[in-house]
Amino acid sequence: MPTKEDIAAFLKAEFPQNKVTVEAVGGRGATVVHPVGMAELRPGGTVSGPVLMTTADVALYVAILGEIGMVPLAVTTSLNINFMRKPSADRDIVGVCKLLKLGKTLAVGEVSLYSRGDDQMVAHVTGTYAIPPRR
Amino acid sequence: MPTKEDIAAFLKAEFPQNKVTVEAVGGRGATVVHPVGMAELRPGGTVSGPVLMTTADVALYVAILGEIGMVPLAVTTSLNINFMRKPSADRDIVGVCKLLKLGKTLAVGEVSLYSRGDDQMVAHVTGTYAIPPRR
Amino acid sequence: MPTKEDIAAFLKAEFPQNKVTVEAVGGRGATVVHPVGMAELRPGGTVSGPVLMTTADVALYVAILGEIGMVPLAVTTSLNINFMRKPSADRDIVGVCKLLKLGKTLAVGEVSLYSRGDDQMVAHVTGTYAIPPRR
Amino acid sequence: MPTKEDIAAFLKAEFPQNKVTVEAVGGRGATVVHPVGMAELRPGGTVSGPVLMTTADVALYVAILGEIGMVPLAVTTSLNINFMRKPSADRDIVGVCKLLKLGKTLAVGEVSLYSRGDDQMVAHVTGTYAIPPRR
Repeated sequence: MPTKEDIAAFLKAEFPQNKVTVEAVGGRGATVVHPVGMAELRPGGTVSGPVLMTTADVALYVAILGEIGMVPLAVTTSLNINFMRKPSADRDIVGVCKLLKLGKTLAVGEVSLYSRGDDQMVAHVTGTYAIPPRR
Repeated sequence: MPTKEDIAAFLKAEFPQNKVTVEAVGGRGATVVHPVGMAELRPGGTVSGPVLMTTADVALYVAILGEIGMVPLAVTTSLNINFMRKPSADRDIVGVCKLLKLGKTLAVGEVSLYSRGDDQMVAHVTGTYAIPPRR
Repeated sequence: MPTKEDIAAFLKAEFPQNKVTVEAVGGRGATVVHPVGMAELRPGGTVSGPVLMTTADVALYVAILGEIGMVPLAVTTSLNINFMRKPSADRDIVGVCKLLKLGKTLAVGEVSLYSRGDDQMVAHVTGTYAIPPRR
Repeated sequence: MPTKEDIAAFLKAEFPQNKVTVEAVGGRGATVVHPVGMAELRPGGTVSGPVLMTTADVALYVAILGEIGMVPLAVTTSLNINFMRKPSADRDIVGVCKLLKLGKTLAVGEVSLYSRGDDQMVAHVTGTYAIPPRR
């Protein structure tokens, strides 16, 4: 199974515009980080919703890659997010993913999102990925 | 109530990094467009999921602003997206929002997302916004 | 393709405990009705959430059967509901489903739920069904 | 704060048609059980989706009551469910709820659903409840 470094290299090659980095992967889960700078903020001094959704989407993808190997064509089929607390404007966003199901064609996982260093969850995501058939 | 131009000016001032433009607003709805270029694509030649989620989030926000005026602190509380077809890599994303409920503290709406010029929906979003109390 | 009567007979045979009746089916949609009596009410004089979810689930199923014929093993894979207004305690619940995607293995649809005779939507559902492979 | 017995008595009085029983409550969570008999089954020998949704809805409600006391008018505002595995036809459904946020006006929680005695999750729910203002 791929290491954290393998996946980081894969993301860099396949998704050059991606800002999210991989902190940990394995055991049917992953932890990723989205840096927060001016581009991630919105009025009221908080992190924009799409940054949180992006972080969760990548966390799910990384957790799946960690289990099944590099599958560039796995695609999100649904994502549900509940925003619960205002993230800090000056802390990165950490996404912790746990896969709930890893079938042959469908994976389901949940992602807890935090402002780094704060253990109050800022948002919670459930998402599904379709896994393309293996040759 | 604000015009399309008022809302465009407001978004430019408050969300300088926003790429989404307003095509129409009013009648409890809005139509917005996200340009698609290299930064919006992902492997397989399709538009990334976060671009679709961002477009839907802005469409909801614009539809709400069109009804209640400029409220910078309205925030998304939940968003659910189903991805249904692969968007074209060479067409902009159009989001058409219809508000389903506009209460004093909560708005609910749905957004249909298309590749411009194609009437097959690429994704469908339902989202809720919390509206801050008026002074 | 099956008629409304075919589907009603199928539901009666396969789901004997089902209370939902079919009002219309076809054109990638369906309209169904859940009767409201004492068993469907909850404190505050309103219809319980599970009644609304059941109605939406059946509406989706009927709309799919209307397109692909009788498939007893089609199963719901996800359902998202937003409750928007308090349904009337003395009116039946009407569910109007529109399919958004009908693929070989997955169908996506939305359902608008009403208290009969009132055109204000009480809840909105998006759901997905997995369709078993045909022999 | 109310005990398990207080909540069971409250549910019996307020929701006489409710079949779900309370196994545990407290610590921002709850465990509830829905008995499975003929009325809960559907073709293919599995538990119907609405039974799972009902169990999750009650689990969330019980977890909230366990924290804020008896509030009959708390209402579900949204619920998202992913169905992951076929529940056993001959085992009760167990719902384990964990509250993710408990604000003054809104609570968010997740519920993991199991066939009793099997540690593979059959479905996962995220839901929100609106809490009425206290006098």
